[in-house]
Amino acid sequence: MRDMLGREELISVEKALELLMKSSPFKTPAEINLPIEEAYGMILSRDAISSENLPGFSRSTVDGFAVNSSDTFGATETLPSYLTVKAEILMGQEPDYIIEKGEVAKVATGGMLPGGTDAVVMLEHTQQIDEKIVEILKPVAPGENVIQAGEDAQQGEHILKTGHRLRPQDIGALAGLGITVISVYEKPKVSIVSTGDEIVPAHQQLMPGQVRDINSYTLSGLISLAGGVPIRKGIFSDTYDVLRDIVVQSLRDSDMVLITGGSSVGTKDITAKVINDMGKPGVLFHGVSLKPGKPTIGGIIDSFPIFGLPGHPAAVTVSFEIFVKPVLEELSGLCRNKLDGDKNTVVAKIAKNISSSPGRQEHIAVALEERNGELWAVPILGKSGLITTLTKADGTFVIPLRKLGVLEGENVKVRLF
Amino acid sequence: MRDMLGREELISVEKALELLMKSSPFKTPAEINLPIEEAYGMILSRDAISSENLPGFSRSTVDGFAVNSSDTFGATETLPSYLTVKAEILMGQEPDYIIEKGEVAKVATGGMLPGGTDAVVMLEHTQQIDEKIVEILKPVAPGENVIQAGEDAQQGEHILKTGHRLRPQDIGALAGLGITVISVYEKPKVSIVSTGDEIVPAHQQLMPGQVRDINSYTLSGLISLAGGVPIRKGIFSDTYDVLRDIVVQSLRDSDMVLITGGSSVGTKDITAKVINDMGKPGVLFHGVSLKPGKPTIGGIIDSFPIFGLPGHPAAVTVSFEIFVKPVLEELSGLCRNKLDGDKNTVVAKIAKNISSSPGRQEHIAVALEERNGELWAVPILGKSGLITTLTKADGTFVIPLRKLGVLEGENVKVRLF
Repeated sequence: MRDMLGREELISVEKALELLMKSSPFKTPAEINLPIEEAYGMILSRDAISSENLPGFSRSTVDGFAVNSSDTFGATETLPSYLTVKAEILMGQEPDYIIEKGEVAKVATGGMLPGGTDAVVMLEHTQQIDEKIVEILKPVAPGENVIQAGEDAQQGEHILKTGHRLRPQDIGALAGLGITVISVYEKPKVSIVSTGDEIVPAHQQLMPGQVRDINSYTLSGLISLAGGVPIRKGIFSDTYDVLRDIVVQSLRDSDMVLITGGSSVGTKDITAKVINDMGKPGVLFHGVSLKPGKPTIGGIIDSFPIFGLPGHPAAVTVSFEIFVKPVLEELSGLCRNKLDGDKNTVVAKIAKNISSSPGRQEHIAVALEERNGELWAVPILGKSGLITTLTKADGTFVIPLRKLGVLEGENVKVRLF
Repeated sequence: MRDMLGREELISVEKALELLMKSSPFKTPAEINLPIEEAYGMILSRDAISSENLPGFSRSTVDGFAVNSSDTFGATETLPSYLTVKAEILMGQEPDYIIEKGEVAKVATGGMLPGGTDAVVMLEHTQQIDEKIVEILKPVAPGENVIQAGEDAQQGEHILKTGHRLRPQDIGALAGLGITVISVYEKPKVSIVSTGDEIVPAHQQLMPGQVRDINSYTLSGLISLAGGVPIRKGIFSDTYDVLRDIVVQSLRDSDMVLITGGSSVGTKDITAKVINDMGKPGVLFHGVSLKPGKPTIGGIIDSFPIFGLPGHPAAVTVSFEIFVKPVLEELSGLCRNKLDGDKNTVVAKIAKNISSSPGRQEHIAVALEERNGELWAVPILGKSGLITTLTKADGTFVIPLRKLGVLEGENVKVRLF
């Protein structure tokens, strides 16, 4: 895909993503069994199924008195029902008596209803006259303030589905169901290969012309947040053999490779050649109508995703969010939600006019400010090669392919970091 | 604060939060030095300051030709400037020559500009005739496509502030500045004490009247996500001495205590008594006009925050988000952002009428659905004692204190889990 001058032609972000996703499903992640206390954020590889009816007994949801609801009909503050307190239900114990008509049992939240009762009157709607007599000031309907046996989960019910990422309340629910070990997918391992003869390790004093390795640190954090395990392979020179060797090694010990830096045309061409030589279909796209992030390469070596990412710190973040993250989530077994794109976004007014060239999707870094109770997005117009642009930013917004810019005061949707 | 019937009077959510935050600052967290690769998500305990000018040299932001910009003035596609290619700049090396008027040097993105040049013409705006001659098709202004020495960071510049939570791009920037070890606050340790004679461990088969410990698992996950380290202390009976002993132990080995379960009035009173007996100011509030979450106790033992949380799984999550999380963030040294409340929210139309009693803030769990391109929030009206209500939900929205409900189709702001 070269134009008449021998330059790569750019494809749109949507088309590039489509090419990647067409190659899905990628390698199925391995399945492991984990104790639930180690499974926060992991993705279920099988449905979680309840092995019992829960609760196993009808239970009060309030502090009050367990009653036969018909004994309370018509009760009011001025004309209460007077009922006999037969017992107090102890927590965690099964009442071994029956409540007859005209009787009640005192019960705390979570307590088991005794036989003969079908509802609970809240403490606030009662007044206890003495140890034996209570006034009921308000009627209750059958089932009121009660969780019925089996209401929470039925035996055999699929409580959580394969592909679901486990949130705190999901782990809590599994504990409640007595499920203490769960089958999840292993997190995909992502190799990060830094390239470029000018790149030196972060701890090193700089010689003229050198820059420190930034992207492998930024990418490590982004990979972890997206549910992967980063493997920082180190810094390698931009030659075919060196790059090929480290990709071969990465294919063996990880599930995806990101090659970063080496943003010059020559290096990109070597990266593309390595990808094409190692398996099918090879390079899917090379150059995207995206700013920053244009020199992104996406490829598949057999079912193994591999990316050549831009060298600029701001560009690498944009490329990751757009291309790497969806592939990583797919690879990790996550059942992606159509609404995920709306998560972690806010709407804000843009604080100045910004023009954009048509024919490319542009991502603008912004800092958010509150002005008179309104949220404003102030563009941070640093060059994309700057390290500190993204440290000053709270997020980014997108100017679509065919739009020529945004006007001051226009609403934009900011994706927050 | 009891009414005429001896019942606790409820205070508003805002008032309760104000009482808690008035007690801040809490104990200052300990400071530790960490390698940056272990500091993702940690909170800076000191400003990060650049010890050098970055970049140390003027650098190209594109692939192209480094020029003296005055040599390109007036260049067009039809009337290009013809310039002499003197050299190609190698990455990571300092050019040891000067570019004279009429000369250029080929440079890749990130390459160092040689003496005599002040701008870079993009490859796309040139055509190389042979090894020695290049046509410049478009003029450049001085400084165009160049990051100036020191443009990214000045020596002594405060790059990131104390109280900032380190994001992936921040760790990348620190690496770029050569800062590989950083001072951060230790994560606060939060003890979770489960109480209630009916509560049994998750692995246990249930006897009639018993339920498994759910809340300690849900809370562990919420604490980790909020930047704390959970310590599950175990399940304890609801007696004064037992509760007092475990609180004494927790004061020694953690920075905050959450007592969960034991939602009956009697247990809450014991919890309140323990808090009041152990230090000043003791219980700040006991019962909040909040649904679910009413029976929440908030207190301070000297500068040590302690909470009695509701027993219901849905209620415990709401209480955590409203009361525990802000205190935990304050305790962790985080410089909280006014905009944090807008993060992770979406606006959706509510799918049915919901009425709410005035005089309490109500949190409704919802599942999100897309209908004809619009986002709808479908209320999950399970009783708050149910385990599975929150596993079916994508988030919650709030009906404020003085509102009587919401009407079908009304826009609500959903806080996503």
